[in-house]
Amino acid sequence: MLTKPQHLFDDATRVTAGDSRWQGRTSPDYWAFVGPFGGATAATILRALIEHPQASGDPLALTVNYCAPIAEGPFDLDVRLVKANRSSQHWCVELSQGGAEVATLATAVFAERRPSWSHQQATCPDAKPFEAILPYPKVAATWVKQYDFRFIDGDPDFGSRKAQPASAFSKLWIGDRIPRKIDMLSLTAMSDAFFGRVFHARRELVPFGTVSLTTYFHTDADDLANEDVTRVLAVADAKIFHKSYGDQSGELWSPSGRLLATTTQIAYFKA
Amino acid sequence: MLTKPQHLFDDATRVTAGDSRWQGRTSPDYWAFVGPFGGATAATILRALIEHPQASGDPLALTVNYCAPIAEGPFDLDVRLVKANRSSQHWCVELSQGGAEVATLATAVFAERRPSWSHQQATCPDAKPFEAILPYPKVAATWVKQYDFRFIDGDPDFGSRKAQPASAFSKLWIGDRIPRKIDMLSLTAMSDAFFGRVFHARRELVPFGTVSLTTYFHTDADDLANEDVTRVLAVADAKIFHKSYGDQSGELWSPSGRLLATTTQIAYFKA
Repeated sequence: MLTKPQHLFDDATRVTAGDSRWQGRTSPDYWAFVGPFGGATAATILRALIEHPQASGDPLALTVNYCAPIAEGPFDLDVRLVKANRSSQHWCVELSQGGAEVATLATAVFAERRPSWSHQQATCPDAKPFEAILPYPKVAATWVKQYDFRFIDGDPDFGSRKAQPASAFSKLWIGDRIPRKIDMLSLTAMSDAFFGRVFHARRELVPFGTVSLTTYFHTDADDLANEDVTRVLAVADAKIFHKSYGDQSGELWSPSGRLLATTTQIAYFKA
Repeated sequence: MLTKPQHLFDDATRVTAGDSRWQGRTSPDYWAFVGPFGGATAATILRALIEHPQASGDPLALTVNYCAPIAEGPFDLDVRLVKANRSSQHWCVELSQGGAEVATLATAVFAERRPSWSHQQATCPDAKPFEAILPYPKVAATWVKQYDFRFIDGDPDFGSRKAQPASAFSKLWIGDRIPRKIDMLSLTAMSDAFFGRVFHARRELVPFGTVSLTTYFHTDADDLANEDVTRVLAVADAKIFHKSYGDQSGELWSPSGRLLATTTQIAYFKA
């Protein structure tokens, strides 16, 4: 029997349904230096919620707190619908391995997105077309190989440390290396697919780890299906690095100029 | 016996310690139209964590999901240390009333802020001095009366609806009406003390409620004690309003130009 092979991303974020306990496993294809790519973990958690029989509405907000390293292999997702209202749901998810302590703690809000007054105040950044930019080379971490990064501003240059801090701003196209239609899961993963802002500001790699990631979705599944795109225009920046922690805020835009998601995170660094 | 009366804010956010279950109660002084001011709820939750005997380090990140209205009166806080590492702690708090369903769900990260390379990339906004601006009048909601808002940009003007959306940006000084030294709790409350961005964009009041609030602290208790300030320079803006939800991002600066906290939220509106 011939079946179309699943996209690597769908393999990596696959979950097995349980009642309140779901299962997933880390993917060698989305591996970072000391654990799974945080964006894949976040997307796996969101997938368990989207596929949950009690889920209603579309993802509106997701916060993922990375509490401890996740080891290679299977993990459990304790999924709990904390509160359901007429048009919104509040979820809490705890990821653990082998009955040990919680490694990832997440909350999510789902909502029915009713038609309303609509106004996009933010301006879509200017950008050279995707096709006019060379892809970023495949570097060591496997997760980076799964994405097609095309930098417009803030091209990574992590071997040129200078006395003065450089800009932490980046503007780039992000698509899956094997094109995949952008859905809520890919927006989630891509919201963590920026390189550490501290690498840009210092122009060098330093020990780094995301501590907490929050993503808001400004589109619903219908909007996204209508966009029918395989890449986003992304910008990311930082405001401050202080006492071992730094922030990042980012935006993910559709090629047609619709703001699909905004994201913010706080990350540990050693420098 | 003469004792110095507590600041209203400290009364409003007072908690009674339990083992895993703490108690608080809503305050008539920080009341919004249909429930307590969300910033006071967030600060009360953070206070329970800061005062918790197991707490270690300083607040780094706080996410509060407002799941259901909180009625006037007492509430319970189920406080759980989900994971503790050598230098960070992950907490989960559920607020409920009378054994009913969860009304507020929060996660927090505490961390030991070790000295590091430090760089504030963001530029402190220009601002007229606090003393040169008239205070915003005391309006209906009691919580607004507890703050001294002095608008530099985006002065509220909610009775002048026009066909074209207005700017959602605001820049203002925020202090307690009865001055109180800025601590982590006031930063938390002030990060939710902006008026709804949709009110600014539409120049009218519409039904509105914060759904999820995330605040990152870029300072620790020592830094803050050294600042010794009673007000912050605050900016807030929105990027998009779509299908009944809109975002807000904000910054809280010390008068000396230090970025103390950044905040983001997603809110429901009806328009």
